[in-house]
Amino acid sequence: MHSDIEISRQHTCLPITEIANELGLQPDEISLCGASKAKVSLSVAKRLADRPNAKLVIVTAVTPTPFGEGKTVTTIGLTQAMNLNGIKTCACIRQPSLGPVFGTKGGAAGGGYAQVVPMEELNLHLTGDIHAVSSAHNLAAAAIDARLFHETRLGAEAFAQESGLSALNIDPDNILWRRVVDHNERSLRQIKVGYGAVNGPVHDSGFDITAASELMAILALSQDLKDLRQRIGRLVLALNTQGEPITAEELGVAGAMTVIMADAIEPTLMQTLSGDPCFIHAGPFANIAHGNSSIIADTIAAKLADVVVTEAGFGSDMGFEKFSNIKVRESGYAPSASVVVVTLKALKANSGIESNKDINQPDMERLQAGFANLEWHINNVSQYGVPVVVAINRFPSDTDEELEWLKQAVEQTKAFGSEISEAFGKGAEGATKLADMVYRATQTASGFNLLYQSDSSLESKLMTLAEVGYGASSVSLSEKAKSQLSWLTKHDYGELPVCVAKTPMSISHDPNIKGIPTGFELPITELRLNAGAGFITALVGQVMTMPGLGIRPGYLNVDINDDGEIIGLA
Amino acid sequence: MHSDIEISRQHTCLPITEIANELGLQPDEISLCGASKAKVSLSVAKRLADRPNAKLVIVTAVTPTPFGEGKTVTTIGLTQAMNLNGIKTCACIRQPSLGPVFGTKGGAAGGGYAQVVPMEELNLHLTGDIHAVSSAHNLAAAAIDARLFHETRLGAEAFAQESGLSALNIDPDNILWRRVVDHNERSLRQIKVGYGAVNGPVHDSGFDITAASELMAILALSQDLKDLRQRIGRLVLALNTQGEPITAEELGVAGAMTVIMADAIEPTLMQTLSGDPCFIHAGPFANIAHGNSSIIADTIAAKLADVVVTEAGFGSDMGFEKFSNIKVRESGYAPSASVVVVTLKALKANSGIESNKDINQPDMERLQAGFANLEWHINNVSQYGVPVVVAINRFPSDTDEELEWLKQAVEQTKAFGSEISEAFGKGAEGATKLADMVYRATQTASGFNLLYQSDSSLESKLMTLAEVGYGASSVSLSEKAKSQLSWLTKHDYGELPVCVAKTPMSISHDPNIKGIPTGFELPITELRLNAGAGFITALVGQVMTMPGLGIRPGYLNVDINDDGEIIGLA
Repeated sequence: MHSDIEISRQHTCLPITEIANELGLQPDEISLCGASKAKVSLSVAKRLADRPNAKLVIVTAVTPTPFGEGKTVTTIGLTQAMNLNGIKTCACIRQPSLGPVFGTKGGAAGGGYAQVVPMEELNLHLTGDIHAVSSAHNLAAAAIDARLFHETRLGAEAFAQESGLSALNIDPDNILWRRVVDHNERSLRQIKVGYGAVNGPVHDSGFDITAASELMAILALSQDLKDLRQRIGRLVLALNTQGEPITAEELGVAGAMTVIMADAIEPTLMQTLSGDPCFIHAGPFANIAHGNSSIIADTIAAKLADVVVTEAGFGSDMGFEKFSNIKVRESGYAPSASVVVVTLKALKANSGIESNKDINQPDMERLQAGFANLEWHINNVSQYGVPVVVAINRFPSDTDEELEWLKQAVEQTKAFGSEISEAFGKGAEGATKLADMVYRATQTASGFNLLYQSDSSLESKLMTLAEVGYGASSVSLSEKAKSQLSWLTKHDYGELPVCVAKTPMSISHDPNIKGIPTGFELPITELRLNAGAGFITALVGQVMTMPGLGIRPGYLNVDINDDGEIIGLA
Repeated sequence: MHSDIEISRQHTCLPITEIANELGLQPDEISLCGASKAKVSLSVAKRLADRPNAKLVIVTAVTPTPFGEGKTVTTIGLTQAMNLNGIKTCACIRQPSLGPVFGTKGGAAGGGYAQVVPMEELNLHLTGDIHAVSSAHNLAAAAIDARLFHETRLGAEAFAQESGLSALNIDPDNILWRRVVDHNERSLRQIKVGYGAVNGPVHDSGFDITAASELMAILALSQDLKDLRQRIGRLVLALNTQGEPITAEELGVAGAMTVIMADAIEPTLMQTLSGDPCFIHAGPFANIAHGNSSIIADTIAAKLADVVVTEAGFGSDMGFEKFSNIKVRESGYAPSASVVVVTLKALKANSGIESNKDINQPDMERLQAGFANLEWHINNVSQYGVPVVVAINRFPSDTDEELEWLKQAVEQTKAFGSEISEAFGKGAEGATKLADMVYRATQTASGFNLLYQSDSSLESKLMTLAEVGYGASSVSLSEKAKSQLSWLTKHDYGELPVCVAKTPMSISHDPNIKGIPTGFELPITELRLNAGAGFITALVGQVMTMPGLGIRPGYLNVDINDDGEIIGLA
C-alpha cells in the first residue's frame, strides 16, 4: 500500500467549487484559496436558518496509545461511507498543528484511503488560521510588555501625561498572558525576557503551542465576528499591582487582535478522497486545550447536510468531555450519536499487562483484560445520554477470532452495537456497515445531559470531573491553585465551566496507570482564567502546555524531491 | 479627502483573474487566494524565457524623516501613470510587516489614490508568506534546542546510539540562529531560554522581526525552489564546541524548512486602484535586513511587462545600495532608471537647521540647506551608472515658489530631471509627466556598476561601503566583530557581499547627524554570517534587529465597526 502522501498526490481532486456547489453553497458564499480549498462565509447559516439541523455524530476513542487508533481515519471514512449510503454527510475536523506534523504523531488528515486531500495543504498552512491565532496572541504579549516598558520608564504620572492613556500599573510578576508558537518548543516553556539596557524590565514568560492559546478556544467557541470581538475584549492578560485584572479591552489591543483573526473566523472547505465535503476549523490538542473544532463550522455544516460527523481528540475522558461540557454547553447543538474508536492493539496496550509478545500477534489474555478500558469509555459517553457505536478499526494482522470476541463482548455493554471499519485500506466501501449502524443510532437519541451545571461552585465542578469524569476519589489543590481558586471565586469567575489539561495516556493524571484507575487523588497544580473563551483551565499532574521534540523528530524525513514535490509528510 | 482604508474599501476591485489575463498569464499559471489575490507560478518565466526583459525602474529616496516621503505612493502612482501613458507596466513591492502596521509607520500599500488594493489584505496576512518564513525560521530554532537538549541529556555517545544520528556537539554559547516574530517586540530582543527541570540547558537567545530573518533574504534572492532548498541547507545555525559551523543540512531540518516555504516562493499578484498589476513578494526593513522584493517576482514581471517598477526602502544609502550590491549582483537584472523621491518637508528636516517654524510652512533657508541631502543621493545613485529622475511628491501646503526653486536646483545636478508627482491625491493622472520622464530616462541607460567586487576582502568591502557608501573616513571593528571577521575569513566566507544594518535616519550610523556627514568613523559592532542568503550582515552603531512599540502604538486605532469592517488601518 502507498504512503498517505503518495495516495493523496496520486488522487485528482475535484474543483472545490464543485464540492461547494454539491453541498448547496452559493458562489458568493465561498472564497477560493487555490483549487482545493475555500473559505466559507458565515452568512450561510443565516440564509438557511429555517432548515432543521443535521444529526450530529461525535467520534471519540478509548484511551490512546502510541500506535494510533485511527480516530480521524474513522471520522473521514464514516463520512465517505455515509455519503456512499446515500446520506448527505459533511465532516468537521480541526486544522493540524505543525508541532505534531514535524514531531512524532504526524499530520491529521486521516490516512490511507480515508483522507482529506490534498493532505499537504491541510497539514501545513491550510488557509493560515493557526498563523493568525499566533499573530494575534503575540501582538497582545508585545502590547503588554511595551506598556510595562513605557510605564516603568516614565512612571505612571508622566506616562499618562505623555501618552494620553491611563497607567495600567501592570505587575511584571503577574503577567498571565504567555506567548505561542506552532512548534514543539521545549526550550521556550519557561523563559526570561527583557534583558538589555533598554528592553526591560526582566520578567518570566514562556511559550505554549498555538493550539493551546485561549484565542484558539475563542475561535472554536465564537458564534460570529461580533462575539469574537467581545470575547477578545474580555481576555484577562495580567494583573495590576493591586491584584486586579487587566483586560485586552483596557490595553486597547482587542480591536487589532480581532482584525488579525477576521479571516480565520471562516471555516475552510476541503474534500475527502471520495469527494465528500469536510470543514476544517480551529485547532487540536484536546489534552492541554479545549481542542475541538468550531461551533461556526458545525453550525454551517448542520444547515447543509443531513449528518455532520466531527471528532474529539484522545479518549472520551478528554476531547469528548470538553466537547460536551464546554462546546455543547455553549452551542446547544447536542450529538445524536457517538462513535468510540478502538483497535485490538489499543486494548492490549491498555490492559496493563506487561508482555514481550509482539502487540500485533493474537493475545486473547491482554485483549480481554484491556476490554475494560473500552467499557469504561462506553459508559462514560453513555452517561451524557448519547448512543454509542463502537468502531473497530481493523489492522491487517487482526485475527477474525479476536475481532469476533470483541464484537460479542460489546454486545454485553450499553453500546448500541459495534462494526468493523476498514476505511483505511478500502475507503468508503470499508465503512458502509459502520455508517449504517451509526445512522440507525442517531434515530434513537433521546436527550443530552451535561456532567455539571454552570452555577455549581468551581470546587464542585472540579470534584465532579475528577470523580465522574476520571474515577478519582478526591482532588488536591496546590498552594498556587488554592490561591487562584479564591481569586477566581472572589472575582465572580466561578460560574465558568472547567477545561482540564491532563495527560491523555491514562484516564487518570498519571500516564503510567493503565486500565481503569480508581481511588486516586487528582492533583490540580494550577488554575488559569480564560475569561474570553469562557472557562477555567485546570492543569493536572505533570502536564505541560508546550510539547517537546523527540530524539528523532518527524522533520528529519520531510523534504522536496527533484520534481519539487513534498516527501516524507506522514 | 478619505483615509487610505476608506478609499480602498469604496473601490470595486477587478477580479484578479482579469488582471492576470490582461498581464498575459494563463489560467493554469495562477492560484486564486480570494477574489483579489493570486499566487503566480514560477513556470511563467520559463514559458516566456525568450522574451526580452522589461526595463527595470528602481524607486529610492532621500534620507527619510518621520513625515514619510511617499516612496510606495510614488512606486504605485508611477505604475498607474505609466499604464495610463500606454506603457505596459507592472509594480513589484514587498509584503508589509505587521510590526509597522501595528506600530508607528502603518501599512505599506501606498496611500491616497496610489494604492494597492484591497489594502487590508495586503497589510495583514496577504497569502501567508511572512507567516511561512516565521514558521520555517522557528522550526530551525526548535530543532537546534531539541538536539542540544537530547545530546546534553544523554551525552554524545548514548545520543548517537539511541537516535542513530551523529552527535553535533552544539555549543550553547554559540547558537547563531535567533528566533523571529512579525511584531515589534522589544522585550524579546534579548532573552534566556531553557528554564525548568526538563527544558534546558539555559542559554541566551532573542527574537528579530521576521523581515530580518535570513530566510526572508533567501526568499528574495532565490531563483527557484531548488535554489531555495540549497540555500536553506547552507544556513549556519550554530557552532559546535570546536568552533566549527553546523548547518541546517547537518541538523536534518533543511528539507522541512523548505517544505514550509514551498508556497511562499510564488509571488502574489494584486492590483492598483487603476487596475494595474502589482506583484508582492518578500519583506521590508532595508535598514536592518536586505529588505528588497524578490528576484523571482522581478523575473516574472520582466517577461510580462515592458516596464517593471520596484522600490528599495529608506534612503539610497540603504535599500538602493543593497538592491544594487546584493540583489542585482545575484540576479544580473540591472535597473535602467531610478527615481529618487523627495518632499519639501524631507529636505527641510534634513537641513540640520533647528527651527520652531511649522515644517509645512514655506522656509527657503531650510529647503536650500536640505537640498544637499538630495544631491548626495543623486550622486550616490549616479555612481552605479543609473539615470536618476527626481520625483517631488507634492503635499497640499507646498508652495509653487519652493517647488520651482527645487526643480531649478535639480537642473544643476547629475539628475536626468525632476517632475512633481501628485499621485497621492490624483492617482494615475497625478504622475503622467513623471512617468513620461522616467520612461525617457530608461532609454538613456548605458551600464551598471557595482560598488565593489566579490573577490575583494571583507575588510575592503566594509571600507568601500563606509567611504563610498556613507562618506565615512574610517571603519572601526568591535572586539567581537574582529574575531568574527577572522573566523569568517578563515572559513572562506570572505567572498560574500556585505549587508549593512544601520540606522536609516542619517547617511551615517548616528540618527542625530543630519545633512551630509563626512570624516566620521563607522563603528561595526557585529558581523553575522548569512551563508544561505549569501552575505555577511554588518551591524553598525546602535542598530537593533527588532523594533519596539512606541508609547501610542498604531494598534490602538484598529478595530472592526458594527458592520464587521476593519477601521483604523493606516
